[in-house]
Amino acid sequence: MSVISLLTDFGLFDPYAGIMKGVIASICPEAQIIDLTHQVAAQDVARAAFFLASAYPYFPKETIHVAVVDPGVGSSRGIAAVKTPAGVFLAPDNGLLTLILEEQQVLAAFRVENPDIFIHPVSRTFHGRDIFAPAAARLACGMDMEKLGARIDAESLIRLDSLPKPELDEKGRLLGFVTAVDGFGNLVSNIRLSDIEKAFKGKTDICIHAGGRVISGISDSYVSVAEGELLAIIGSTGCLEISVNRGDAAGHLNIGSGGKIMVSLCAQPDRG
Amino acid sequence: MSVISLLTDFGLFDPYAGIMKGVIASICPEAQIIDLTHQVAAQDVARAAFFLASAYPYFPKETIHVAVVDPGVGSSRGIAAVKTPAGVFLAPDNGLLTLILEEQQVLAAFRVENPDIFIHPVSRTFHGRDIFAPAAARLACGMDMEKLGARIDAESLIRLDSLPKPELDEKGRLLGFVTAVDGFGNLVSNIRLSDIEKAFKGKTDICIHAGGRVISGISDSYVSVAEGELLAIIGSTGCLEISVNRGDAAGHLNIGSGGKIMVSLCAQPDRG
Amino acid sequence: MSVISLLTDFGLFDPYAGIMKGVIASICPEAQIIDLTHQVAAQDVARAAFFLASAYPYFPKETIHVAVVDPGVGSSRGIAAVKTPAGVFLAPDNGLLTLILEEQQVLAAFRVENPDIFIHPVSRTFHGRDIFAPAAARLACGMDMEKLGARIDAESLIRLDSLPKPELDEKGRLLGFVTAVDGFGNLVSNIRLSDIEKAFKGKTDICIHAGGRVISGISDSYVSVAEGELLAIIGSTGCLEISVNRGDAAGHLNIGSGGKIMVSLCAQPDRG
Repeated sequence: MSVISLLTDFGLFDPYAGIMKGVIASICPEAQIIDLTHQVAAQDVARAAFFLASAYPYFPKETIHVAVVDPGVGSSRGIAAVKTPAGVFLAPDNGLLTLILEEQQVLAAFRVENPDIFIHPVSRTFHGRDIFAPAAARLACGMDMEKLGARIDAESLIRLDSLPKPELDEKGRLLGFVTAVDGFGNLVSNIRLSDIEKAFKGKTDICIHAGGRVISGISDSYVSVAEGELLAIIGSTGCLEISVNRGDAAGHLNIGSGGKIMVSLCAQPDRG
Repeated sequence: MSVISLLTDFGLFDPYAGIMKGVIASICPEAQIIDLTHQVAAQDVARAAFFLASAYPYFPKETIHVAVVDPGVGSSRGIAAVKTPAGVFLAPDNGLLTLILEEQQVLAAFRVENPDIFIHPVSRTFHGRDIFAPAAARLACGMDMEKLGARIDAESLIRLDSLPKPELDEKGRLLGFVTAVDGFGNLVSNIRLSDIEKAFKGKTDICIHAGGRVISGISDSYVSVAEGELLAIIGSTGCLEISVNRGDAAGHLNIGSGGKIMVSLCAQPDRG
Repeated sequence: MSVISLLTDFGLFDPYAGIMKGVIASICPEAQIIDLTHQVAAQDVARAAFFLASAYPYFPKETIHVAVVDPGVGSSRGIAAVKTPAGVFLAPDNGLLTLILEEQQVLAAFRVENPDIFIHPVSRTFHGRDIFAPAAARLACGMDMEKLGARIDAESLIRLDSLPKPELDEKGRLLGFVTAVDGFGNLVSNIRLSDIEKAFKGKTDICIHAGGRVISGISDSYVSVAEGELLAIIGSTGCLEISVNRGDAAGHLNIGSGGKIMVSLCAQPDRG
């Protein structure tokens, strides 16, 4: 049984995601369909890329991941299908696969362009229904990827700028920023545990600075501080996060994506 | 394997939709359940009818479509089951099946009234759980529709007023309106491409008027105009839509459902 | 085929719920996954307990119910697995299973603590992915519960305070309160039909008092009053609810959870 994962910005008010599932069930009834999310902010390709990268390692290696955040739908932008050891990925060629291409070996890549596998008439605005869903369903039921279209060089695919890595300033402090705010209000940073270990080499007297506040040390759990208090913790993607025990750190600190996060030794002064 | 589609106004905060799925899994574990949406605005039967009509053509022909937008739950309103070549439809007899009855041949129609197939005690407020889900599950696992209840004449079922078609005014302009705003803010009109072709007979110098703005021509894709600019496009249901490239047309024009849309030759004056 | 139900406060914007499903599909592809809801208010354990109790009776008796509303994630709080005649329940030991433990016979209970069944590295913040999903998937595919960890006494599990039952005052009036507001704005009370029958012994001249308004009698359906009018009805969980026909009772009365609901004979004065 094949798994097809779906990641879109279609929302859950309109039946768009349900219609894609109807197409899949019509073509490949035995495919198991799993929603990653349909509530990526409209046309936020970078966020979709991040979500896809955080999810695919937990799926079966034969999964067909379909990601449709596609502001260029109907234009000459291409659609790519990329086979890796960790799954097959279908997405518009707009940078959505950037992190997959960074992290995974590409075994083969194709343009999705063969009209024989589309639903006709192909609409100008809903390739999720007319191209992505039928292509994914046929792959899930065993169609060879060669039938999708021309083989392409994965190097030719559009990539988003890499997420900037945290920097070390002249005082040895680690400077990062908020990459995402999750539904709980947790602030996810671009600072990985390994960045901290490398910068401070086992020193444990670490302070985290965000929104004008200083947090002492990295906690093991949300409840290691009192309710309503700030804490820093290593989140589920391995990055430093700022949270409030039973609260909303983004609201508490009034910062969001792009907000500055700094890690220093506590003995260091807060500001340069 | 049978497919059951679900369309309700139950929302996704409460576990109502999940409970319906539990009932289905208890009675017919092999049914595949697909959500169309559970976020129809509360008791918006007309919107549910439109969503159902936009979705069913993309589902397997044996699908059992269950639509529960049911302000009359617990009253004497009936529940209908209608078999067509494109699937079986279960819904309260409140007009929800209007478009299905217009578009599809009715092979048989029944009232859903046999208490032997219900879950007891039948609540006053949640027939989705106690009647629709068990009826759909039994059908999915092979129960004959005759067992649902009395055979009825589909002509007797309640229908909503037909959506008004666009009108041609004395100057040959096509007058329509916004029937729906989707999650992206796209304005879906009641004007079909065929209406435009018929009214303007191949002339390409077409202008679209909405919210005091004039849009020149029908675009092939959102990105055919600059970011933030208005465009007109034929949407995935075949109707003219007004959109903003990477933006929200409803917010941009400050119009919503019922707002006027006019199509004219560009040479014609904007207003009569 | 086994069913796994999921109940969390992860929301549907982030891919957290989808990632749990990826883990399950990786370990036990034949499990059928059903969402109860992922939109419990963040860390609202009591609400999750109520939702779980309202749903499990409608699921197959072999279902594995996974409930992750877990403010203590990463701390020393335990995770419990409880086997009952109505299903297996996995949840943090924080009171989430209170109503299950009240309503069902416990056949066996275990701590979920065997690292051999976890996904490594186990994150500090996402045990849904690293512990709950793999444990549930292994159980769904036949793993013996003994392998989860030490057998425990269900009496040792944390319980929430019981929901107060409605009280009879010195004038024979039944005093209750709003326990929940559903997505339609219906006010669900803690007063059961049996409480009313017991207090008023077949008298039918019953009045319901809420938000300064008096409702005469219990209706059989929403449409038994005019559109926009208040009514009282026995809801799908067997409790008295206050609703507005085609409207939002919570908004109409401007009351919410905790708001007072009183039932009296209509002949009685409204207030003491």
